Amino acid sequence: MHGTVLHAPGDIRFEEREDPKILKPTDAILRITATCVCGSDLWPYRGVNQIKQPTPIGHEYVGVVEQVGADVRNVKPGQFVVGSFFASDNTCEICLAGYQSRCIQCELSCQGGAQSELIRIPLADGTLVATPEAPDAELIPSLLAASDVLGTGWFGAVAADAGPGKTVVVVGDGAVGLLAILASRELGAERIIAMSRHESRQALAREFGATDIVVERGDEGIARVKELTGGYGAHSVVEAVGTEASMAQAIGCTRPGGHLGFVGVPHGIEVSGGVLFNTELHWHGGPAPVRRFLPDLIDRIWRREINPGRVFDLTLPLAKVADAYRAMDERRAIKAMLVP
Amino acid sequence: MHGTVLHAPGDIRFEEREDPKILKPTDAILRITATCVCGSDLWPYRGVNQIKQPTPIGHEYVGVVEQVGADVRNVKPGQFVVGSFFASDNTCEICLAGYQSRCIQCELSCQGGAQSELIRIPLADGTLVATPEAPDAELIPSLLAASDVLGTGWFGAVAADAGPGKTVVVVGDGAVGLLAILASRELGAERIIAMSRHESRQALAREFGATDIVVERGDEGIARVKELTGGYGAHSVVEAVGTEASMAQAIGCTRPGGHLGFVGVPHGIEVSGGVLFNTELHWHGGPAPVRRFLPDLIDRIWRREINPGRVFDLTLPLAKVADAYRAMDERRAIKAMLVP
Repeated sequence: MHGTVLHAPGDIRFEEREDPKILKPTDAILRITATCVCGSDLWPYRGVNQIKQPTPIGHEYVGVVEQVGADVRNVKPGQFVVGSFFASDNTCEICLAGYQSRCIQCELSCQGGAQSELIRIPLADGTLVATPEAPDAELIPSLLAASDVLGTGWFGAVAADAGPGKTVVVVGDGAVGLLAILASRELGAERIIAMSRHESRQALAREFGATDIVVERGDEGIARVKELTGGYGAHSVVEAVGTEASMAQAIGCTRPGGHLGFVGVPHGIEVSGGVLFNTELHWHGGPAPVRRFLPDLIDRIWRREINPGRVFDLTLPLAKVADAYRAMDERRAIKAMLVP
Repeated sequence: MHGTVLHAPGDIRFEEREDPKILKPTDAILRITATCVCGSDLWPYRGVNQIKQPTPIGHEYVGVVEQVGADVRNVKPGQFVVGSFFASDNTCEICLAGYQSRCIQCELSCQGGAQSELIRIPLADGTLVATPEAPDAELIPSLLAASDVLGTGWFGAVAADAGPGKTVVVVGDGAVGLLAILASRELGAERIIAMSRHESRQALAREFGATDIVVERGDEGIARVKELTGGYGAHSVVEAVGTEASMAQAIGCTRPGGHLGFVGVPHGIEVSGGVLFNTELHWHGGPAPVRRFLPDLIDRIWRREINPGRVFDLTLPLAKVADAYRAMDERRAIKAMLVP
């Protein structure tokens, strides 16, 4: 089969690789229907995260079960499935409490790299969710979004306690931030303020439910949000970037006693005890337990209630994966879908 | 009148001072019935917090209203009242959401120092809660505890989401930690693990509802808690000290997706983005919005359901305040009550 391998910063190759095999009786092998490039893939691509050896890459996927191990009961060959970046047993106390991203058996589900034709998924029974039947082609982008960016944006909105009567601020206008807007709307938020200075992303933010756009950043952005919220700050803020500046902006936009949901993978963030203590925020976030939300998200997509696949503004054949990285790196695309 | 003034580390004096006066029409003057020394008073007493000039001290009080400003409606001269360390209007959106400690009009309520005979309390209508009538003498210690340590321990337990079915760990065996145990029991926690190596405090912890005692600290303490919780860690952890070591211990004792309530005033704590993110905890804490809990706490005390006044194991005349500081500094007393 062929798969994507990152050799060095900027050096991404689609090359021949060995077919994945069932290693444990709880594994499944999927034939990938669609995959994509994540904002977090750009960290190693840009050399911010070190690459020690050629590394298979990609962790977002939908596909058809090709083969299952002897102990797999919940999915079977031929089914169309959605999974996420963590494999989880979905039976331990941590999973049952909704934190499958920290399952006691937790491991990365895509060590073989999901930007490929085939992939081995561990703990298939706990990790994969089958759709009712083979989906219409038009649903594929949205189901693929559910695999990570929708699930992550949704977790951000839930962690920020978005809901009826709430004013939500979303910091970050990448796919996760945009889908946190959609999630906040679905969760019933009264007002949703998107912080964005890119016109095409502002348009999608409005389509997903943003009621206000704030173009200012940093202290000016915080002042603008305070102005829009009676001087108090927002009840709920989603941080979907992961830099020190965006985190500071998110903290500053949240009212005392409010909820800050952070889903941007942190780079260079430190929070002093004084800030943690004196802001009196509810802080919650981390790698999203996407599995918690998958059945509900698949249902909403299946019923055509939400169209998160709109974040894909570029679709390429998987073999052109290097072009997809370039387009996202240069911010020419919000998110690129890849089809084998 | 006479009041307590900290002149320099270790130099605490009970001396003659000017009587407080109504400065704003929303003020009240109280005649203190009882006050006490807080663990946090020991920071400046020990010279950890700098003292720039002689400073009136104390922020825990119950007393009788002596005089009110022209705009005060909710309390009147002669009433017995309980307040807390922050003055709050109790009408702004932040107060109504239960964060009176961050009221938009918030100010320290005891700038004149509560370890005195008289004190001016700002925003009296929002800050003070009157008891149904003059309390029996036996209730005074518990009502005084409600003013800070009970309210703070209670907030810690609420922030840690203590409740039915939960295993709670309390880090810190000072008055706040001990009362977080009592609060966890009242909130219905199934199991309460006190981390303490002092026999007299362990005994009070058990009396307040602790089901288990862990004497180990640091990594050993964390390992012991994991052992007691099926390898997962506790659902709910209250941090009631404020040092780097106690915070690290509290973080390590909390299971992924669990709740960490921190009420120890932080000294030298930094939390990296990685820890904030990857632990997937719910983090919440800060200066306790005691006012949120006061009506309920006073009711429970009035009905003799709880006896938080048990934390006072030393009672002295207010004039002997220096002895009270020494006893607490040397850990000879858990908490010292002072009576003018």
